[in-house]
This record gives sequence, C-alpha cells and structure tokens, in this order.
Amino acid sequence: MSDDKKGSAYVLGIDMGGTKVLAGVVDRKRRILSRAKASTDSSSMSSLEKCFSEVISAALTEAVLEPSLISAIGIGCPGPLDIRSGSIVNSPNLGMKEIPVRDLLRKVLKAPVVMGNDVNVGTFGEFEMGAGVECRNLVGLFPGTGLGGGVIVDGRLLEGVTGNAGELGHMIIQPDGPLCGCGQRGCAEAFVSRSALAKELAGLAAAGKAPALLELAGTDLRKIKSGVILKAIQAGDKAVEKAVLRSARIMGIVMANCVNIFNPEMIVLGGGLVEKLGKLFVDPAAEAMKDYALPALSRGVKVAQSKLGDDAVLLGAACMALKSL
Amino acid sequence: MSDDKKGSAYVLGIDMGGTKVLAGVVDRKRRILSRAKASTDSSSMSSLEKCFSEVISAALTEAVLEPSLISAIGIGCPGPLDIRSGSIVNSPNLGMKEIPVRDLLRKVLKAPVVMGNDVNVGTFGEFEMGAGVECRNLVGLFPGTGLGGGVIVDGRLLEGVTGNAGELGHMIIQPDGPLCGCGQRGCAEAFVSRSALAKELAGLAAAGKAPALLELAGTDLRKIKSGVILKAIQAGDKAVEKAVLRSARIMGIVMANCVNIFNPEMIVLGGGLVEKLGKLFVDPAAEAMKDYALPALSRGVKVAQSKLGDDAVLLGAACMALKSL
Repeated sequence: MSDDKKGSAYVLGIDMGGTKVLAGVVDRKRRILSRAKASTDSSSMSSLEKCFSEVISAALTEAVLEPSLISAIGIGCPGPLDIRSGSIVNSPNLGMKEIPVRDLLRKVLKAPVVMGNDVNVGTFGEFEMGAGVECRNLVGLFPGTGLGGGVIVDGRLLEGVTGNAGELGHMIIQPDGPLCGCGQRGCAEAFVSRSALAKELAGLAAAGKAPALLELAGTDLRKIKSGVILKAIQAGDKAVEKAVLRSARIMGIVMANCVNIFNPEMIVLGGGLVEKLGKLFVDPAAEAMKDYALPALSRGVKVAQSKLGDDAVLLGAACMALKSL
Repeated sequence: MSDDKKGSAYVLGIDMGGTKVLAGVVDRKRRILSRAKASTDSSSMSSLEKCFSEVISAALTEAVLEPSLISAIGIGCPGPLDIRSGSIVNSPNLGMKEIPVRDLLRKVLKAPVVMGNDVNVGTFGEFEMGAGVECRNLVGLFPGTGLGGGVIVDGRLLEGVTGNAGELGHMIIQPDGPLCGCGQRGCAEAFVSRSALAKELAGLAAAGKAPALLELAGTDLRKIKSGVILKAIQAGDKAVEKAVLRSARIMGIVMANCVNIFNPEMIVLGGGLVEKLGKLFVDPAAEAMKDYALPALSRGVKVAQSKLGDDAVLLGAACMALKSL
C-alpha cells in the first residue's frame, strides 16, 4: 500500500439497481479510484450478501486498498425504503419483501452505512458535483423507465420521515388519466417517461404514422428506447417529434408544480430520455415550465441537464458517505 | 414596569393580511400578552408605516411594555415575497408593486425582523405549538378563499430561495381544468377552496337543487361562506353534501401528492372551510389520501385539524422571532 493511502479517508459508493450493483472506491477529493459491477442476485438474503461481498472486494482490489481503510459506505437503492432501519421495504423489482441492506453491508465490511433512494442519491450527486454545484435549492427530475425525482432543500437532501420523499413521478396531474405502474391513474410518470412515450409511439407506428420508427423498432415497446426515438425524429418522423414535444410540455407542468412547491434555483433534468434527446426535450419543457409556474417563482429558475450521467448515484452515495464522516 | 419584565425577551408577532394587520406581544414561554388590530392601509408607503406604527404601539401599550424590550419581530405576509430583501413583491391584494416590509417595520421599532409567507408562518405555528408539536415533518393545507400551503422539513420551515415555497394550492392537478385566480387552469385551488366550492354551490342553488342553501344565501358567491355551507347540509341539502364530499376527495388527491413528495408524518388541515365543516371534510379527505398515495408512504400518516385557529400566523411569526434570538 502506498504511503498516501494511510490515514486518508476513502469511502465506497454503491449504486444498487434491480439488475446490477455498481460499486466504486472514492477518495476525499471525490475522485473515483475504482469501479466494479455485479448482477443483482436478490433471490435470497445470502445471495444478495454474496453479491455485495463480490462487488466490494473487486472495487477494493482494483483500488489496491484494504477494507479497513474504508471509512463509510453510501448506497442508493430502489425504494420504498425505511432509512431508520436501513432496509428496502417491499420492492417490486427485487422480488423480496424486506431487505436489511445496512445489516447485509455491515456483514461484508465494518463501516457505517448511509443510504437513500437511488434517484434522491443521484440528485444529491448532481448537487454536490454536477449540474447543481452553484445551488442550494434544486429539484432533479429523471425520466427513464419511470420518472424519478429528488430534491435539495437549503443544501440538504429532502428525505422525509422514512427516506421516501421526492416521489415526484407519482404526483397525480390528472385524476383518471392513464394507468401508472403504481396502480394509480394520471401520475406524472404515466405521461412523462420512456415507457409512457413508448406506448404512444408504438401506437403511432402501428397506425402507419411513424414509418422510420416502425422500421427501427417495429411496434415492440421494449425496443422503443430513447436512442431509437431520437433516430426516428432525425429520420423525419414528424408524429414522433410531436409526441416528444407533447411529453416535454407535460414535463413542463410537472416542473412548474415543483417550482411552486419548492421555490428552487434550478431544475436538473436527467435520465435516458433527456440524455438522448437533449435540447429537443429540455427546451420545450423549460418553456412550458415558465408558461405554467407562478411568475414570481419561475423567474430566474435555471433548467439544466444532468452532468454525471451513469455515475450520478455512485458519486451521490459517495458524497453522502463523505459528509457523514 | 414590573420587575419580571426586565431582562426577559419579548417578541412581536404580526399577521399582515390584505384587509387587516394583527399584532401581539409574545413572551419567551410563547404566551400572547396582548393583541391589537388595525385595517391594512397600503395606499402608500407612509400610510402602511403609520398602520404598523399604530398596531405595534397598541400592542405594546396593552402589554405595558417599552419598545426597547422587544427583541425581535416576526411577520407573516401575503406573498409573493422576497425574504432576501425583506419585501412583498407585487401582491395583487395589496395594490402595491414592491413593499419593503422589513424596512418599514425597522423605522417603527429597532429590532431584527424575520418574515415569511402567511400560510407558511401559520404552518410553522401549528408545528411549534399546535397540531404538529410531535412531528418534525409535516404539511399544512389551508382551504379558505384560496388554498394555502406550508411545509416543515425535518423541523425547519421550507422557504425556498426567496421564501415562496409551499404554494401547494397552485399545484396543477388537471391541465385545462377550471380557471384559477392565478390565471392558470386546473390548480388545486381551483378545485379545493371556499371560492371554488361556492361557485359550484351557487350553480346548484340556481338550478333548484339546494333549497336550504338558496334560502340561506341565495346565489351570491360572497354569501356562500363556510358556515352557510354547513347549515345547508344540516338542513338537508344532499346536493351540497355531495359537492363537499367531492371537494374533500380532491383535497385527498392533493394530500396524496404531498405525501408522495414530502414523506411527512402528518398533514394538518385548517382554514375556514375545515374549521366549519370539521369531520365532514377531514374524514373523506383523509380516506381519499390513503386511496391515492403510495402505500409505503401513506402508512402511518396522521391527518389532523389545526389547533391555533386565527392565532396561527401571529404565533407562528412570534415563534420564528423567538427562534431567531
């Protein structure tokens, strides 16, 4: 071990998803020293513990670091959580009822664990190191498969009583609107997400109104990914462009609600849809936000695209761990 | 002056409304020692200064206290505000563009001033001394003429960057819904407020479907006050009861959104409509909240009626002033 590693603080940042776990060693200067990945095996507690153990070992090995030099672990998990007990409560994607994440991690490595909902943690990353470094009040909205949200209030992550605050995608914006994955109707997520858009676009393709999309992806919802949507627009599918614009304008309503609720300095947009479509999505969304929000509150609100990309949760988790020291 | 007043800290709590200003001297134990009232005269800066001067003098006189014994002033004002400059920005109800509230108060009395949006300050009062004393995370919703909101996050008032956070009544819950006073369509306030309800009920009365209401108030929106609505229900107007129930269920959707956004321990309902209708409004609203919110977040959320009534803003402002010492 090199001398400069002794006495320094290192943390582990973990991004736990439904299909994979990403772990990285991060130093005090918030540089990622290593990255390791494993498939999420949540078929049993012991398999999940083994999965944590492997990915952490790999990250430590790559960073050439002994476990005892890790001062804290930060982890972003799919919710709903109970941060008081350090567990995931009944996550549909993980197929287990109650997952004591903090306890499992402590079995693998003796260090304090801080945890948060994945999108909350990603938003914290953007606040600490990404698009929002100049702000103390910001809202993150991440349309992907769903529509995740996260909020920073006066420099602190909005957690709520059990760590589940920031479910902005489940803000109902039209009672009796389209069905949402959560079982309700008219949630923001049922309008603004890759999944919601894919449903509409598959319909357009089936009706012969989106020939380029039809050629690229057929009418299979799973194949209508963000990159494909961009390609269809570039190939001249006007109906696809119109659908994206409509989706962006509804995102603007969600953003306007967030402006009126949080009076933030900035809205950060990220996630697959935003990364691929860029200004095609962000600009009309920002314009609609100004149209729908209270003028006294929307004046001066910046709309920015996320900067950390796939590292947002890992870095956000690492920053939370560093802050806890 | 009695001896026990020397060396003690007293604060002034001020509730500034569009029509009247209420001021009270409050001691360290948060007891109201005096109350004074004046009509809000915002026709010019000097008339508003005079109005502040009179109401403060009267409150001090009643409490038998010298101005020098006031350690701080807290004030709740109609928004939008800019708490950084201590002013009200362009308030439609006050007919003035920019009101430097903090500077005006300092001319009257040399003490530090803390200010906030009136409903935010009232929610802070409920948190410090009313329905929410046991909680650290709560949301206040106050349907009256409009629908005001306030939020406490981890024991602190959610202010946002200019003090205008918590405009929960301007959360759009149905784009292209009924027109709201703010100029948008489908804000929560356009569904859930005394004004919104009055419009619906006047229509029912005009159509002969609410005979008791028709006798009590005719079809004049201004006469259909919360107390009148209660009387019409008690007199057997089923259509009025049904309209109230519908309004309460929409309030439940707004509450569900707040649960998903803030993950609070409690929702406090107050304002004229809630005070008069009580359980008739609160119970169906709480039930609808559970129907619409994410179960992992709504589980255990208490729904309570406000306790401080007309003193909420005065006491909230006084508590803010005491905290600032």
